[in-house]
Amino acid sequence: MSEQGAVVEVRRGGSLESRHRVSAALVDAQGRLVGHVGDPELVTFLRSAAKPLQALPLVADGVTEAFDFSDEELAICCASHSAEPKHVETVLRLLERIGCGEDDLECGPHLPFHPESAEALLREGRPPTRVHNNCSGKHTGMLAWARHSGVETAGYRGADHPVQLRIRREISRWTETPSERLQIAVDGCGVVTYAQPLCGMAGAFARLIDAAEDDPASPAGRVARAMTGKPYYVGGAGRLSTHLMQATGGRILAKYGAEAVMCLADRERRWGAAVKVEDGAKRAVGPAVIDVLVQAGLLNDDEVQALDEDHVPPVTNTRGEIVGELRATFRLRGGA
Amino acid sequence: MSEQGAVVEVRRGGSLESRHRVSAALVDAQGRLVGHVGDPELVTFLRSAAKPLQALPLVADGVTEAFDFSDEELAICCASHSAEPKHVETVLRLLERIGCGEDDLECGPHLPFHPESAEALLREGRPPTRVHNNCSGKHTGMLAWARHSGVETAGYRGADHPVQLRIRREISRWTETPSERLQIAVDGCGVVTYAQPLCGMAGAFARLIDAAEDDPASPAGRVARAMTGKPYYVGGAGRLSTHLMQATGGRILAKYGAEAVMCLADRERRWGAAVKVEDGAKRAVGPAVIDVLVQAGLLNDDEVQALDEDHVPPVTNTRGEIVGELRATFRLRGGA
Repeated sequence: MSEQGAVVEVRRGGSLESRHRVSAALVDAQGRLVGHVGDPELVTFLRSAAKPLQALPLVADGVTEAFDFSDEELAICCASHSAEPKHVETVLRLLERIGCGEDDLECGPHLPFHPESAEALLREGRPPTRVHNNCSGKHTGMLAWARHSGVETAGYRGADHPVQLRIRREISRWTETPSERLQIAVDGCGVVTYAQPLCGMAGAFARLIDAAEDDPASPAGRVARAMTGKPYYVGGAGRLSTHLMQATGGRILAKYGAEAVMCLADRERRWGAAVKVEDGAKRAVGPAVIDVLVQAGLLNDDEVQALDEDHVPPVTNTRGEIVGELRATFRLRGGA
Repeated sequence: MSEQGAVVEVRRGGSLESRHRVSAALVDAQGRLVGHVGDPELVTFLRSAAKPLQALPLVADGVTEAFDFSDEELAICCASHSAEPKHVETVLRLLERIGCGEDDLECGPHLPFHPESAEALLREGRPPTRVHNNCSGKHTGMLAWARHSGVETAGYRGADHPVQLRIRREISRWTETPSERLQIAVDGCGVVTYAQPLCGMAGAFARLIDAAEDDPASPAGRVARAMTGKPYYVGGAGRLSTHLMQATGGRILAKYGAEAVMCLADRERRWGAAVKVEDGAKRAVGPAVIDVLVQAGLLNDDEVQALDEDHVPPVTNTRGEIVGELRATFRLRGGA
């Protein structure tokens, strides 16, 4: 296999076996493209990377105050959690506090991302339920907003429900895309998901972190504090978003979305970034994202060291032998 | 996301979310390239697509005769089986007949590909063992060859063991690559795997099927009969290789390999084919392979109909809703 383009290589022995193409955009708080890989105009869906934006109405409209959300609880509303016991307990507690139950969740069930938690369910012969869905915290936030606003909770996932219309205004605002031009589809959990060019996603995260740093008490500030302060509640053990926020002591805010998209923001530099592995392969996101951050000078040596297993993951076989590795080979280029 | 190149698209709603790049080579029995997609010279590893070639010494050297292999048993030596109960029983029976046990297998354990079989193990709190490895049949064949040849069985997976040297001669012969130029690495199950350009893989399968049709009693003929006659033992329920052989009544021989490579042969036209999804994504192999076969005129309407779920798989969400689809958009081009 020849070596070309903006890729993460999958090597077996000394040879290239597969490759993942990567695009990325890096944008400053003024909306300027300050770096890119591949095609920064590539349009794809935000998927779960939209969760920090989808959570903003909870703070802005007084929902978190009315229901006395802790930072862990706000963080899990922004999470693709692994359904470890603490995640499940947090969601169930929040559901109870807002006067709802698991049956009100309109996401479908799937096995926990956390392997031990998935195996525990299977061992006990218990099928996974809606609370195990990685998006159950986001759904609980939507239910909380509906409760607080006095609107019907049933059907909250539909594009025309007040909570989705409210979120749509927020997505429109931060991505600077007129609401009627937002391209939508149905997400893995059943709610609305939004398409954006990578530079639009990166711009939204740059503006978000800029607002958060300007005013830590603002909705953006509260969401950023919850996510970067409680990264375990945004993902879980072994999860890339969690690792990135932990390794940088919360300086970097990171949120993964299905089909290999990731949005990030650096609190110091006030830059936003969006990275997409063209083919949707999760395994290439760590190598791609961390290399973008390294090349942009957004990680120090200790942080790169701490993230080494995500940056250059080994390929192992069923015998546990290391037989290859994944590695980014692209060059980050300057602005447009 | 813009639409370009030789790809399988992943669509969510009406929009492109991800894409998989595809290369393929179609070669006739005289070794001529008669069709291609992307780069037919792309070099990657054969992985489990090598299994039909790796099984040839079993027939050629009298091992199948000495141990009285049934077609099911020879098929499972060419298999990436799903570890359904029948697969596991077949491997254990064969191991016993050659005077070996599960401990002699040098592949590592992994959960069965068959979801119900995997869940059954987990429910019973039994960790998977070596016999559940999808390659345990191939490994049993290698042990049988060692037993029959009177050489040490331990270490049979090593590149310098007589059984691997014997297989290497076979790979060299059918791919027409001098043995010393064969690029190797360690496979997922611990044995040697071989790199080849796609046109080399396709040529090997064209020559194999040509030899099989010329002489059904030859090693090639026996392996082709076992695989196409007992396709369930080559994969299992829901597996693409099995579906392709079943849907065509055994006219097409098909073998999947990890990292999204597939080798095929058509018994009537005596053509070989090799398809690689550049990024290694299994989900794109069905759409890519079936579209190559359709465009080459190698499937009739009934067969295409029977393979529809593999050809244009739906994207579903956790609620069980269909929210998108995968679809090949490339054009098969002529010879070189």
